[in-house]
This record gives sequence, C-alpha cells and structure tokens, in this order.
Amino acid sequence: MDIFINGIGMTQFGNLKDRSLKSLLLEACEEAIKDAGSPKIDAVFIGNFMGGSVYNQEILGALVANDLGLGHIPTAKVEGACASGGIAFRQAYIGILSGEYDTVLVAGAEKMKHISTAEITEAINAAMDNESNEKHAGLTFPGFFGVLANRYFYETGATKEHLAKVALKNRENAMNNRLAQFRQPTTLEEITSAKMITDPLGLFDCSPITDGAAAAVLSNKSSDIRIAASAQASGPTQMQNAEELLTLQAVEESGKEAYEKAGIGPEDIDVVEIHDCFSMTEIISSEALGFFPKGEGYIALDEGRTKPDGDVPINTSGGLLSKGHPIGATGISQIFQVVQQLRGNAPNQAENARIGLAQNLGGTGAYSTVHIMERLG
Amino acid sequence: MDIFINGIGMTQFGNLKDRSLKSLLLEACEEAIKDAGSPKIDAVFIGNFMGGSVYNQEILGALVANDLGLGHIPTAKVEGACASGGIAFRQAYIGILSGEYDTVLVAGAEKMKHISTAEITEAINAAMDNESNEKHAGLTFPGFFGVLANRYFYETGATKEHLAKVALKNRENAMNNRLAQFRQPTTLEEITSAKMITDPLGLFDCSPITDGAAAAVLSNKSSDIRIAASAQASGPTQMQNAEELLTLQAVEESGKEAYEKAGIGPEDIDVVEIHDCFSMTEIISSEALGFFPKGEGYIALDEGRTKPDGDVPINTSGGLLSKGHPIGATGISQIFQVVQQLRGNAPNQAENARIGLAQNLGGTGAYSTVHIMERLG
Repeated sequence: MDIFINGIGMTQFGNLKDRSLKSLLLEACEEAIKDAGSPKIDAVFIGNFMGGSVYNQEILGALVANDLGLGHIPTAKVEGACASGGIAFRQAYIGILSGEYDTVLVAGAEKMKHISTAEITEAINAAMDNESNEKHAGLTFPGFFGVLANRYFYETGATKEHLAKVALKNRENAMNNRLAQFRQPTTLEEITSAKMITDPLGLFDCSPITDGAAAAVLSNKSSDIRIAASAQASGPTQMQNAEELLTLQAVEESGKEAYEKAGIGPEDIDVVEIHDCFSMTEIISSEALGFFPKGEGYIALDEGRTKPDGDVPINTSGGLLSKGHPIGATGISQIFQVVQQLRGNAPNQAENARIGLAQNLGGTGAYSTVHIMERLG
Repeated sequence: MDIFINGIGMTQFGNLKDRSLKSLLLEACEEAIKDAGSPKIDAVFIGNFMGGSVYNQEILGALVANDLGLGHIPTAKVEGACASGGIAFRQAYIGILSGEYDTVLVAGAEKMKHISTAEITEAINAAMDNESNEKHAGLTFPGFFGVLANRYFYETGATKEHLAKVALKNRENAMNNRLAQFRQPTTLEEITSAKMITDPLGLFDCSPITDGAAAAVLSNKSSDIRIAASAQASGPTQMQNAEELLTLQAVEESGKEAYEKAGIGPEDIDVVEIHDCFSMTEIISSEALGFFPKGEGYIALDEGRTKPDGDVPINTSGGLLSKGHPIGATGISQIFQVVQQLRGNAPNQAENARIGLAQNLGGTGAYSTVHIMERLG
C-alpha cells in the first residue's frame, strides 16, 4: 500500500513563553489539516517527551481530537525521548498500513523555555537509564557526545573547527528559515571561542532549548509526496554497551532498513535532515547513513558537500542546532522541511530535490527513525 | 489477518517500594515471553503514564529491548492517561496487522507508592486539561466521578449501598487473586462507613495507588487465544462537554466498534474486565457496553449477575478497586485476567468462559479501549 503526506504545518520555533503547549499543537495541526484540504481525520498521534514532567499536561491526543472537533477517534501520545516525533510519525504510517485508518493526523510539540536550565536538564535526563552507573557518575547528553567527539578527533584527525563548520552551516541555513529559533549571523571565530559546555563541545555545538510544534497529515489517498520508507531501530541505552563508539547503531540499522524498503541507496537521496543534537552527531550520523565512508564525514563537510548547493545537502532547515529542538516536535519538523524541499518551496531550496530523508534520534542512540519521502511526477 | 495472544505475565500489584520501575517491567516481560515459548520479538510497546513526572525515567521501550537483549528492534512508550496500557496493546495489535511485525511484546508499568499522595494527585491531574476552567476550579478525578454518582442516584434511585456492593464484590474477587493489592475481607458496613473522599464516594469506592507491571506477547502465529476485536475511541476531556453525563461516550463508542468488528454482541461475552477506577464507573460502563439497559446496571449488580457465578461476571480479578491500579499496567492486567479466564485457570474462574472483553478508560472519559478475546477450539 502506498501512503502519502497530504499536508504539513509548523509553528515558529523559539522562546514562546506566552503560548501554551496545547495552543502550539493546535496551530500546527490546523495548518497541516488545511494544507491537506481538510479531510476527515481517523486517528491522531502526538510525539511529546516532557509534557508530564515539566508542564503537568498529558492526554495531548485527546486534547487535539476534542479541541479540533475531530469526533470520537482513537488518539495517543508516543514517547521515545528526542525521537518521539519520528516514532509518532511512524505510528501514523503503520496505522494506515494496517487498514485501521485512512487518514491520520500526527503532531509533535514541546514546551521547554518556561523553566530553568537545571530543571530542563533534569527532565532530559529521564532519557538515560536511572539505574546505570554512567548516569550515577554524572554523565549527561553533552558529556556523552563530547566523549564521541574526542574519540572522533583521535581516530580521524578532525578538529574542533570541523564541528564549528557544522554549526556555521546550519546557522547560515537557519538565517533563511523564518520559523527557525536562531537567525543571527555568526562566524567560525565566535563559534570556536564560545563558552565550553563539555570539552570539546562549545555552546554553538549543542542544540538549544526550544518551544514549538509541527504536524503532518498522512493518508492512503494519493498526493504529490509519497512515503517511500518508514524504518525504526533501537540501540544501546548506555555508552558502555556500544559495540563501536563512533557508530550509532540505531542510526545505521534504521538507515539500512529504510534503504532496503525504498529499494534505493544513499546515493539516490537529494536532500537530508539529520538529527544534529550536537554538531558531532551530524557528522557521525552522515556516515552511519552511508552518505560518506566512516571517518570521512568531516572531509565532506569541509569540502562544502553538505551545504544546500552541495551534492548531499544536510539540514537545510538549520537543523536542531539553529532551527531549534522542541523535543517532541523535532522529528516532524524534519519531515516538514523535507516535504517543502520536495515541493520546491523550502528555505535553502536544493536543486531538483525529488527524494528526501529525515533521521530522528532519541537518547544516547537508544532510538532512531528514518523516513524517506519521494516527490511523484 | 488473525492475531493471537501467545503469552502473558504480571507482577504482584501493591506497595513495591523496593522495586524499580524497570525491574517490574522486566519481570512481567520475561514471564510473558516465557509463557509464549520464547519467540523472536520484533517490536516492543510500553504503556506508562507518569514515568517521567514522578520517577524521572522515560525511554522504557529501549530499556526493555536492551535489558532483555531483544536486538535493534523498534520500541516506543504509549500514553493515554489511565488507558495507556490498553492503547499500547492496541498499537501492538496494529503493528502486526500492518505486516511490519510478526510478534510484538507489550507491557505496562507504573511506580506510584514511593511519593506522597499530594504529589501523586498532582501527577494524575496531568490527565485533565490544564487550560479548562473545571481544573482551575479544583475538579479532581474523585470529584468528577462523585458528580456522576450523585446524578446516577437522582436519575435511577440507586444508593450509596449499591456502590458499596461493587467494592465488596471486587474485594471478594481479589481475595482469591494472589497478585491483587487488597485481599483483606471487608463488609458492606465497613465500606459504607469509610472515610468520605468526595461525596458520595468513600475510600473503598476509589481505586488505590499501586506499583506493578503486566505484559503480553501478541503474534500472527496461532495460539489458543485469538483477539476477536481491538477498538478505541475518545471522548470529552471536560465534564461540561459531555453530551450526556451518565454515558461515557468513549466507552460506548469503543464497545460498539468492538462488537461490530468481532461480529458479536454483549450477550455473547462470557467474562468482562471493566475499568472500575471508581465503583460508580463499573456500573455506568457496564451499561455503556450494553450488558444492561441504561440506568439498570445497579439492579443487575444487586441481583448478583456480575459476580463470578452470575451471567455477566465483571472484574473477577478484583478490578482496579482491589487488584490495584498501577496506571500504565492496568489495561494489560485486565487482558491478563481475561486470558486466564479463557484458559480456564483464573482466580474466580467463570464456567465455560470462551469469549472475554476488557475495557480500559483514560482521563474523565477522554480515552477508552475495548478488546475482545476468544478461546479457539
């Protein structure tokens, strides 16, 4: 069965302290439904990570169904840490594939800017294993990806300046994306000399704290954008259990499965959104997804191949680093950007984009989804 | 496609302060996998409501996949308030129906006893709409169902003693269930004279705070228990939006859909687990599911028809009221009991139970799932 994306919607990403979680969700959903031509919706899935812990608001699925007057339809929230949005999108896809639903609304949202950084850090740490000695020893997400960066430098000869080039590229992309959180110009010097978060990751190497929402309408009714593959994999919840530190296994596995399902390879992809929670993550995941050989992603970056006019445009939206990272919304906002690219109306439009890929990561590699979308005709 | 339940597992329900959320999940999962003959698992869904807000532990899907060594398989947590377990079960069912998975492990779990009642009440209130005037006015879950009880009394002539008879029946059932939280004998007098929570609901009319987990293995490989129907509906998130106060619309809609899918009616059901979060809820949901005419559920109860040897045995497990209500686990623990009934080895075994129904409610009627299971041969 072919499944299509009939509509997309997305709110501003940023510091939206005067907006409620529900109002963000509803705005993105209404836009996606309108974009899809206002079809009858058969089910709703919501990607969200910390609605309960920092906002005391669960039942997001029922709130959307009720407030949009969608009737007595099935709804649920889906959680897989920072991959909550991508997994919710996949549940919408599977729901249609099963024959239970014809048209499904999926949305992701997060409110994060209304509380302190310490409280957010505590809430984010729910994506680590409470019982692991790594967490007890104080490991955090910047710590995990900082270790990976140092190891990558050691094995490949890459430097902190390569990481900065990821951050700079994504900021330059965000400058053209009116929905992005950070649109101020910056320089390599500003990035490399910024406040250190976890050596070698500085402030610009880390995705920010963001409010926002994104949505999509999926259906078995034909439209111009077909979902060529939906794939998901899991990986180790602890660093000590990684088979190989510089390959996020969930990313690699979900990528392989997606290519197999779509019957294509990385060389066929015209535009890519990768989960750049840290600058380092974009590079190693561009390798895990087969765009570049292992240990050579930083060279491709250096050569400008991942810029919008390169042969593998990555994160033309600005990525998590500059578009922002409202956790539950991120996976769906990636798909929002890929659909815009395939429709030919994206910020930083890539030339002749016909096939796009979106990869969404959760935890320290505990979850990854990969979706491949194709423009028909 | 026919989908089957190949295995079930469940931990003790109760005050399990020395057990972690993960250890409860793993125990139930291991039991279900063993009961299913240790098949290869293709995906994991977890039903859970407050892992993030009161236990700082999300990524439960990845933790189970990792700690049980299930490989790089897709996993997710599913939330729909107190219906999280039933919805997770339905996602497992849909995943197999879609052809994406052959065999899926589903589990539900909650840790609630390690914090104060005030903190738990706050966390549970995440299942109401933050922006509603009802919540701002101080409405809580006992308040909502207390209003329903008073209205039911007014319309039908039922009394507080009828509610007590629900609580007494379910306690007597729990006394035979070694996994139930409350197994001490009680009396109508003790129940009707217990501390008032919200008029007319006393302590025994309200489901308790509970730790526990339950699990099941679903598959397209034949076993003795077939899932005859999986249905889900949503309803109003606010009392003021209910079309009719004494009909939980989500329960009625999910029931109708389940009967239609199974091609049977309520008269064909041999054994029932109903979401008795309050004694009142069991009565009105027994009507919404079509077992008794509207306004006559309390008469059927009075006549003993809902006891294990009655013609409509309801909550032979002890129900939420006495088996306990570890929120995310509840929906799957209901299915655990129905499967035991169909296998002929349940506590309070009903005679010749061949078809069973489990109904799981979320919020103030925001979600309901109904699953109908059938013994083959």
